[in-house]
Amino acid sequence: MNNVSDKYLALSGGIGGAKLAFGLNCCLEKSQLTIVANTGDDFEHLGLLISPDIDTLLYTLAGMNNSQLGWGRKDESWNFSEACEQFGLDTWFKLGDRDLAIHFYRSQRIKLGASLSQVVSELCDRLKIQATIIPMSDDPVRTVIKTDKGTLSFQEYFVKNRCLPIVSNIHFEGKESARPSTALVDCLNDEDLKAIIICPSNPFLSVQPILSIPSLREKIKASGKPVIVISPIVNGDSIKGPTAKLMREMNLNCNVKTIAEIYKDIATTIVIDKQDEAEANEISSMGFDVMLENIVMANDEDKKNLAKAVIDFSGNL
Amino acid sequence: MNNVSDKYLALSGGIGGAKLAFGLNCCLEKSQLTIVANTGDDFEHLGLLISPDIDTLLYTLAGMNNSQLGWGRKDESWNFSEACEQFGLDTWFKLGDRDLAIHFYRSQRIKLGASLSQVVSELCDRLKIQATIIPMSDDPVRTVIKTDKGTLSFQEYFVKNRCLPIVSNIHFEGKESARPSTALVDCLNDEDLKAIIICPSNPFLSVQPILSIPSLREKIKASGKPVIVISPIVNGDSIKGPTAKLMREMNLNCNVKTIAEIYKDIATTIVIDKQDEAEANEISSMGFDVMLENIVMANDEDKKNLAKAVIDFSGNL
Repeated sequence: MNNVSDKYLALSGGIGGAKLAFGLNCCLEKSQLTIVANTGDDFEHLGLLISPDIDTLLYTLAGMNNSQLGWGRKDESWNFSEACEQFGLDTWFKLGDRDLAIHFYRSQRIKLGASLSQVVSELCDRLKIQATIIPMSDDPVRTVIKTDKGTLSFQEYFVKNRCLPIVSNIHFEGKESARPSTALVDCLNDEDLKAIIICPSNPFLSVQPILSIPSLREKIKASGKPVIVISPIVNGDSIKGPTAKLMREMNLNCNVKTIAEIYKDIATTIVIDKQDEAEANEISSMGFDVMLENIVMANDEDKKNLAKAVIDFSGNL
Repeated sequence: MNNVSDKYLALSGGIGGAKLAFGLNCCLEKSQLTIVANTGDDFEHLGLLISPDIDTLLYTLAGMNNSQLGWGRKDESWNFSEACEQFGLDTWFKLGDRDLAIHFYRSQRIKLGASLSQVVSELCDRLKIQATIIPMSDDPVRTVIKTDKGTLSFQEYFVKNRCLPIVSNIHFEGKESARPSTALVDCLNDEDLKAIIICPSNPFLSVQPILSIPSLREKIKASGKPVIVISPIVNGDSIKGPTAKLMREMNLNCNVKTIAEIYKDIATTIVIDKQDEAEANEISSMGFDVMLENIVMANDEDKKNLAKAVIDFSGNL
C-alpha cells in the first residue's frame, strides 16, 4: 500500500539494481523515490569522466537504455570506437557515439566546478526522470580489486579482463575521506522515509562501496527504518554478473543464506526468490523478515511487480 | 621536370590549400614534400584540441576527406552531435562520430607532453601519408577577428557566424612569442629546397598567420628560393571561402593584381588562371614571373595537373 507522503531510498549498482529502480520509479509518485548510485566504478577514460552506474540508472529510468547489451544507449552506433582503433586509442571500454554526449556533459560541468550531485540532478531534469538519482558521494571513491593478475581498477577487472581474474581482496580507495552526498544524508534524516531498499546488485562491488562511506552504515542503522535487501542470488547462482563467481573465490557458499549473512548487521528484511523457499526458515531464524517473490526480472512487468510487492510489504511493516 | 633530390615546401590552410597539397603529394616522391599548415584556426572545443587545417590536410592526403562537405571525414555519421543537443552542449562546431577520434588522439598526446609537431608526425605515419605535414609552430598562435559583431575567434567568425560579420581587423594572438616549428626551419635551411609554394589559401586567414611567425618571412627571403604563389582569386572572385568578401571589406580590389601586391615582398612567381590573362602583363611589370594555368581544381586530375605544372615550372627557374 503506497501512501504518497511515504519516501523510499534505494541503493543501487548498475544493471540489476537499475531494473528494480525502474520498477520502483513506475510505482511511486514524484519525490517519493531517491536512488543512491554506486560511484566506485567511476573512472577517467580518454580524458572523459565516466560514471557507469549513474548512467545505467539514468538511461534505464529515461527508457533510453540498450536492453540488448545491458549497458549504454539504445539505437547506438560505434563509429567513434572504430575510428579510435585506427589511431591506436584504447577501445577496451566501448563508448557508443550517442553515449559519448553524457560523458562530455559531465566532464565539462565538473571542469567548470559543478559537483557530481549537481550534474546528475541536471541530467535527471534533462532526461525528464521522475525519481531523484544521487551519487553516494561527491568525493571520489574507487573500487580497487586485488587479483591473481595483479591489482586492477574496477573497469580493468570488469570490462578489460571480463571478470576472469581470481579476486583475493576488494578495497575502496578514498573511502576514508569521502562524505555521503548531502541529498543522501537529507534522505536518511527525512521522517517520511518509509524504507531503505538494497537493490539486487553485487554486494561486494556495487553495494559495499556505498556502505563503505564512513558513518553511512551507522546513519542507516540509526534511522530505525526497515532495510529491505533483494537477493542478487537465485537458486545458487547470480542473476547476472560475477556475484556467484566472487562468492566462490571468497570461499562463501553461493546461496541466499550467505546474502543474509553479508547484510545481517544492517538489513531487517530479505526478499528471496520462490525457488529458494527451502532456505526461508533458516534466514527467518537469523532474525530477518523474509519475503518470497519472483525476483528474476525478465521484462518491465516483472520489474513493476517486484517493486510493487516490496512497497506493499514495507507499507505493512 | 622533377629531380627526386629536389625538395618543396608548401604553405597551406584548409580546403583550397589541401587540394594543391594533394596534387603535389601525387607528383612528388617520399621526402620531397613538406607541407606547413596554418594553426591559427586551432581551438579547444568540448575540452578537445581541434586543429582544423592540419586535419583537412591529413584527411585529404590520406584519401579520407569528405568531399561533399569540404571538411571532415567521408562516410561520417552525426549521432554524437545529435545526442549533444539533447544535453544542451555546444553543437555549432559539428564533430562527426569518426572525426572525433583524431581530436581525442591529439588531446591525449598533448596532455602527455607531446608537441603538436610530434602528434602530426605520428598521425601522418598512422594514416600512411607520404608527404611530411608540419604545424607552422608548436606554440599557440590564434587568429582573432575584429568585426561589426564584436571580436571573434576564427571559428566563431568562420563557423558559428558563417563569415557574415564585416571584418575590420585581423590579428594573431601569441605570434610574438611563437617560434617556427623545427622541421619548418630545417626545411628552409635544406640546400635541396627547390621552391616554396604558397597554396591557393586565404591570404589573410590562412597564409598570413604562418607568415606572422617572427623571423619566418625573413628566413623565407633569406633562403633565396623561388616563392610561387597560386592565386586564390580567379576572375574577380574567390574559388571558395571568404577571400573576396574580406578583400571588399578591406577596400581592396578583388583581382589577381591585389594578390600580387599582398605577396610582393616575398613571392617571385604568381600563378594565375588563364581567365585572368589580361592582368598578366601588369603583374609581370611588378617584377613577378607569371604562370598562366587552369587553377580551379574541380577534381583530382585538376589537382595533379596544377601541381605538375608548378613543379615543372620551378624546375626551369
